[in-house]
Amino acid sequence: MQSFEKLSNRINQAVAESGLPAGPATLFEPIRYTMAAGGKRVRPVLALAACNLFCGDAERAVDAALGIEVFHNFTLLHDDIMDDAPLRRGRPTVHERWSPNAAILSGDAMVILAYELMSQVDPSVLPAVLAVFNRVAMEVCKGQRYDMDFEQRTDVSKSEYLRMIELKCAVLLGGAARIGAIIGGAAEAEAQKLYDFGVALGLAFQLQDDLLDTYGNPETFGKAIGGDILAGKKTFLFIHALERAEGEIRKRLLRLLRSPGSDPQQKIAETRALYTETGAERAVRDLVFVYFRQAEMILDNLTVDAARKTTLREISDTLKNRER
Amino acid sequence: MQSFEKLSNRINQAVAESGLPAGPATLFEPIRYTMAAGGKRVRPVLALAACNLFCGDAERAVDAALGIEVFHNFTLLHDDIMDDAPLRRGRPTVHERWSPNAAILSGDAMVILAYELMSQVDPSVLPAVLAVFNRVAMEVCKGQRYDMDFEQRTDVSKSEYLRMIELKCAVLLGGAARIGAIIGGAAEAEAQKLYDFGVALGLAFQLQDDLLDTYGNPETFGKAIGGDILAGKKTFLFIHALERAEGEIRKRLLRLLRSPGSDPQQKIAETRALYTETGAERAVRDLVFVYFRQAEMILDNLTVDAARKTTLREISDTLKNRER
Repeated sequence: MQSFEKLSNRINQAVAESGLPAGPATLFEPIRYTMAAGGKRVRPVLALAACNLFCGDAERAVDAALGIEVFHNFTLLHDDIMDDAPLRRGRPTVHERWSPNAAILSGDAMVILAYELMSQVDPSVLPAVLAVFNRVAMEVCKGQRYDMDFEQRTDVSKSEYLRMIELKCAVLLGGAARIGAIIGGAAEAEAQKLYDFGVALGLAFQLQDDLLDTYGNPETFGKAIGGDILAGKKTFLFIHALERAEGEIRKRLLRLLRSPGSDPQQKIAETRALYTETGAERAVRDLVFVYFRQAEMILDNLTVDAARKTTLREISDTLKNRER
Repeated sequence: MQSFEKLSNRINQAVAESGLPAGPATLFEPIRYTMAAGGKRVRPVLALAACNLFCGDAERAVDAALGIEVFHNFTLLHDDIMDDAPLRRGRPTVHERWSPNAAILSGDAMVILAYELMSQVDPSVLPAVLAVFNRVAMEVCKGQRYDMDFEQRTDVSKSEYLRMIELKCAVLLGGAARIGAIIGGAAEAEAQKLYDFGVALGLAFQLQDDLLDTYGNPETFGKAIGGDILAGKKTFLFIHALERAEGEIRKRLLRLLRSPGSDPQQKIAETRALYTETGAERAVRDLVFVYFRQAEMILDNLTVDAARKTTLREISDTLKNRER
């Protein structure tokens, strides 16, 4: 069996070996900095594991997997400019360390680099792989745009929120799994199942992220707790709480959303208490469970060598039990 | 013969018919706005004409040509953010009309859209077309980065400047012609010649742009004259003048470069006079002639049906005689 850790290390090795051009250093230094920051490498690992599932050879998908990881890191880089975020994975963001212009341009180069890597797949599957990648890449942009649009609204519905995180986050996990499957020789119907598996995992992952951001342990989470609350994000937690809250509780929730001047720690503690009181925390925990369960069921029903499913199961289990 | 105008109109039709997704409007409205602004459509016309040269059917290259035009417009959009430019083709830039964040994200979506269009080419030529597109797209980023880096320097050499405009501007014309040729069924050696033709044309085009920016007629040029001088750009004109200037003239040139507070019209007039006095104007006009001549010679030596060369000749002639 190829463990999550082993595949993750394989991606780190590919990152280290990827020969970026020497110059201009001002273009490529921020890219190296971004790619070296690490992270769990969930998306490329999914691509490798999905490829291995169908052909027993994860190596075939390394270039495409790295392309997906480069694209993912590009989205983080540009999102950080748009959110004016000072830190990413505990280090200054590229626009802080260099400049917004440097971050825009190096991000642009990363999209092209992602396509360069994606273009390395066998010509026989290139049109199919590109069709998936083009679609999910555009959907990620749409998701980011909806996320920005939602900042101006207070009437975002649960289904709008779920659709937004599906686009912004989940489809890229789905696309990674699907592309790995295609490279591994999966038939269209099987590749679709891997896509559905990745999307379910991605939805669980993002909702879990929302929970960790509000209820996580600051020691293990690696960043400050309560960021979404302070930013006034309309997460599923907030939407559910507002939907259920009545009378005095509803007023308190809306007052908390609109009180930028109040003590941050108190605001976080009060909002969190309301989320729990209205059942929002429970509802999101249930939803996370449902999406993980959905992913597992898709895996159960796949008609491939059972032993090869182990890696994908481990990915799902690792994500389920994560605390950061 | 397919005239420049006819092919340009074909591209405008393709732009009008390109079915962008409906939502989110906040993502696609800025893209429609950018693409509808027009321009000469030189790059996609080159792709169509190059395709027609080898197979007599320009239609085959329409998607790829449009992809190149979308990519070109993406670079203008992001460059305008980086330069903080208020106007483009007489209209407010996207970051002015919407916001910098909207401009970043819609620009990102345009890169993906460009690749979506490029991916429509026949699978038999897809790897070759992508190899060219990936390379020139990355080179355009490098060129923009060098251009930004040069702002901080006063010791930019002529060969550095020529290499910068080759990357930032010329290779995309070369890539357009090469991609059109590949789609039209050209052999590798012929495709290379079309690339060289496009690059020579692109170098002539950019140097001519520098001349128009300094010596153009404001009536026909369509924007204010002297922008490069006021921005302190190290164009070939400036580099040549500084190289030739001695004593008092050299001092005046450097004083003009570093005098942000002085009267703009006087600064432009004085600098322009020094460019002419030092022979810089003459040197750039000669260089423009040389590159156009080079493009024509490449065309002369192509072993294809002479009648089909007419369109490419017309493109070259139209550019040569342009006043905007």
